[in-house]
Amino acid sequence: MPATNRARAQRPRARRAARSVRPRPVITLTSDFGLHDPYVGIMKSRILQRAPRIPLIDLTHEIAPFQPEQAGYWLWCSYLQFPAGSVHIAVVDPGVGGARSIVVLEAAKHRFVAPDNGLLGLLAQSIPDARAYRVEPRALRPLGLTFASATFHGRDVMGPLGAELAARRVRAEQLGERTALLLGTLRPAVRTEGGALEGQVALIDHFGNALTTISAEALAALRGAQVLLGTRRLRLVRTYAEARADECVALINSSGMLELAVREASAATRLQLQVGAVVQVLVERGAD
Amino acid sequence: MPATNRARAQRPRARRAARSVRPRPVITLTSDFGLHDPYVGIMKSRILQRAPRIPLIDLTHEIAPFQPEQAGYWLWCSYLQFPAGSVHIAVVDPGVGGARSIVVLEAAKHRFVAPDNGLLGLLAQSIPDARAYRVEPRALRPLGLTFASATFHGRDVMGPLGAELAARRVRAEQLGERTALLLGTLRPAVRTEGGALEGQVALIDHFGNALTTISAEALAALRGAQVLLGTRRLRLVRTYAEARADECVALINSSGMLELAVREASAATRLQLQVGAVVQVLVERGAD
Amino acid sequence: MPATNRARAQRPRARRAARSVRPRPVITLTSDFGLHDPYVGIMKSRILQRAPRIPLIDLTHEIAPFQPEQAGYWLWCSYLQFPAGSVHIAVVDPGVGGARSIVVLEAAKHRFVAPDNGLLGLLAQSIPDARAYRVEPRALRPLGLTFASATFHGRDVMGPLGAELAARRVRAEQLGERTALLLGTLRPAVRTEGGALEGQVALIDHFGNALTTISAEALAALRGAQVLLGTRRLRLVRTYAEARADECVALINSSGMLELAVREASAATRLQLQVGAVVQVLVERGAD
Repeated sequence: MPATNRARAQRPRARRAARSVRPRPVITLTSDFGLHDPYVGIMKSRILQRAPRIPLIDLTHEIAPFQPEQAGYWLWCSYLQFPAGSVHIAVVDPGVGGARSIVVLEAAKHRFVAPDNGLLGLLAQSIPDARAYRVEPRALRPLGLTFASATFHGRDVMGPLGAELAARRVRAEQLGERTALLLGTLRPAVRTEGGALEGQVALIDHFGNALTTISAEALAALRGAQVLLGTRRLRLVRTYAEARADECVALINSSGMLELAVREASAATRLQLQVGAVVQVLVERGAD
Repeated sequence: MPATNRARAQRPRARRAARSVRPRPVITLTSDFGLHDPYVGIMKSRILQRAPRIPLIDLTHEIAPFQPEQAGYWLWCSYLQFPAGSVHIAVVDPGVGGARSIVVLEAAKHRFVAPDNGLLGLLAQSIPDARAYRVEPRALRPLGLTFASATFHGRDVMGPLGAELAARRVRAEQLGERTALLLGTLRPAVRTEGGALEGQVALIDHFGNALTTISAEALAALRGAQVLLGTRRLRLVRTYAEARADECVALINSSGMLELAVREASAATRLQLQVGAVVQVLVERGAD
Repeated sequence: MPATNRARAQRPRARRAARSVRPRPVITLTSDFGLHDPYVGIMKSRILQRAPRIPLIDLTHEIAPFQPEQAGYWLWCSYLQFPAGSVHIAVVDPGVGGARSIVVLEAAKHRFVAPDNGLLGLLAQSIPDARAYRVEPRALRPLGLTFASATFHGRDVMGPLGAELAARRVRAEQLGERTALLLGTLRPAVRTEGGALEGQVALIDHFGNALTTISAEALAALRGAQVLLGTRRLRLVRTYAEARADECVALINSSGMLELAVREASAATRLQLQVGAVVQVLVERGAD
């Protein structure tokens, strides 16, 4: 899916529908809190107090504990599915209470609030207009926010700060200086010297599909592409339904990313795939 | 619980309460997306854009992957718990991108949006006024909806279409022709030649209770009923509390369905029950 | 965190923010229903019909089945994180349909609706102004509420009753007589004859942290405190980040409770901790 399609996908409005409702920014939440404990509910209470009329949407709270880049990958794949003006709060924060900063990233009319621990690296690297700001404690005081606890800055700062940003009572550039974000290990796919596209398996989803860092935009430049996983060649199909029973295939998923899948089964299990595995896309000789 | 009771259960309104609030239709969501990935949140964003004032209620997103009939069973048991006028969106869709249709089922003042893969079979077979419509792609265009991706029609079509139906901007009969739905393997319980009632275990719930296809309405006709699981006889009790420790019992659950349970333990584990297991209800000689 | 700080933490409002938004009471939900079945959604539908404008926040629905005290512990730790006037509905109800009562506890401007099975014991014992009322079936009739099913009083009574309380259409003292609640096995920490503070591990959270019944208020009286788990001494730190890799530490968590943790790992696994394990806090000789 080319970039213009991805952007368009976020406002599939008909004439009649457009008159009656307009895209309303939302607040999304992503964390590793899980749903067994009340931490998500506590953070939501703080957000609701400050932005009672902005819809609150859970992306997921089941990020593997202490894996901030998983949260960042989901945001990278998903943010364009939400209306411009939305605020995305992502709290995977093993360094809470230590020296790590809290940052706000502005990019493509979206804002992201997160700890500066690699979580936002993929977004910062790949969105051309991305600007990151390091949040200064003194900028929080006029908002009535302090680092009240040593262990739950999602509740104390990131949640309510996201609400203030969404409600447009504060702007990112009022919160602190521009900063360069820490990057993690995930990178957008790169073009190798031989002309291939090389990316990684970034995440295994609930269905066992392996999601990669290779975007449809990058792929679009390669006609007749062949997907390689080690020495294994995967057929590039359009839908899961096109795969034969048990066949491992590659396809462009609904977020516009290259995904490895097995029809009605787990590709991760079938291919013994792990996060970090290298995926290459080659151009067939003579295909160009 | 007889049918009239089930219907009444959905509007337990007092005089004073009735004056201050009226039953408002809701949109319910059922899927096999799980909560580890952002797919539910993405679908909700699309629904919220089109129906921002209609409450959105999750039934469950933990349907076993690729088991549409589990979703259909829960809807069959649960829809009367929601106000008339509600729209139920159910996305368990292994055939996405293939030839399967999307359908809208109207029944008992409720509407159901789902792929035509057996999911809605139990509802279509058991509600007398059920009418199904096959959704035509050209009927979606005026709503600004297209099958934009090949893999996520819950986001592209079923979610936002459910929102349009709930907001009453489109009616089911405007979407396409009447159609006969695909049926799955679950069937409402039947009366055998010997006069017994024969159904199946349809689903194992979170507590390990085994839910069957035998409804209280059907049971009501059988006085002095005895529940048989293979050669095992189960006592029919009114509440879990009536069961003795470790005793496997049958009871009419809160949805009005026959359920097999063990007090404070898992009936599924204790009885080694599986989905599909036959459950019979016999009338004792001389009980009528 | 002393009591005054805990109270203040619930309204961290700035001047400007205070003008634009005011703390709005919410309804919180806690249960052992899990998220695999539609029971949570069904209960929410009933609540929404009666209190459509009050935000509904899930604390957790993953309480271990039939462990009401886990729900009570989370509420005890968390209720001050929600605005005064909030209603907390907690349904862990293995005795449903039996003789157990439904009760409403009023305490510190919060209200709690639950079965009388020990769930609210910790709250009732530790909040000075706590008053419990036993809900009489005849008091429910004017509200249009009845024990319609024998197995789901969360839907039939506790959910909608919580909505009526939150909407201020009924007051706790109109529902029945004052009553003494059943207590469970968890108790607030006590001072031993030797001057130590003795509490228990009450719960293992999603990260594997062990949460105890020892509050920061109680600890504040003990300067130079040492935390003992059997014969093992744990360092008392301020943040997870202060712990060395693999070190088991104690800290005051974001709810103001003593917690045992291992940095980026599970303390429960590392220390083979179980609910009920005794935790002692000693004062070092000469530290006072």
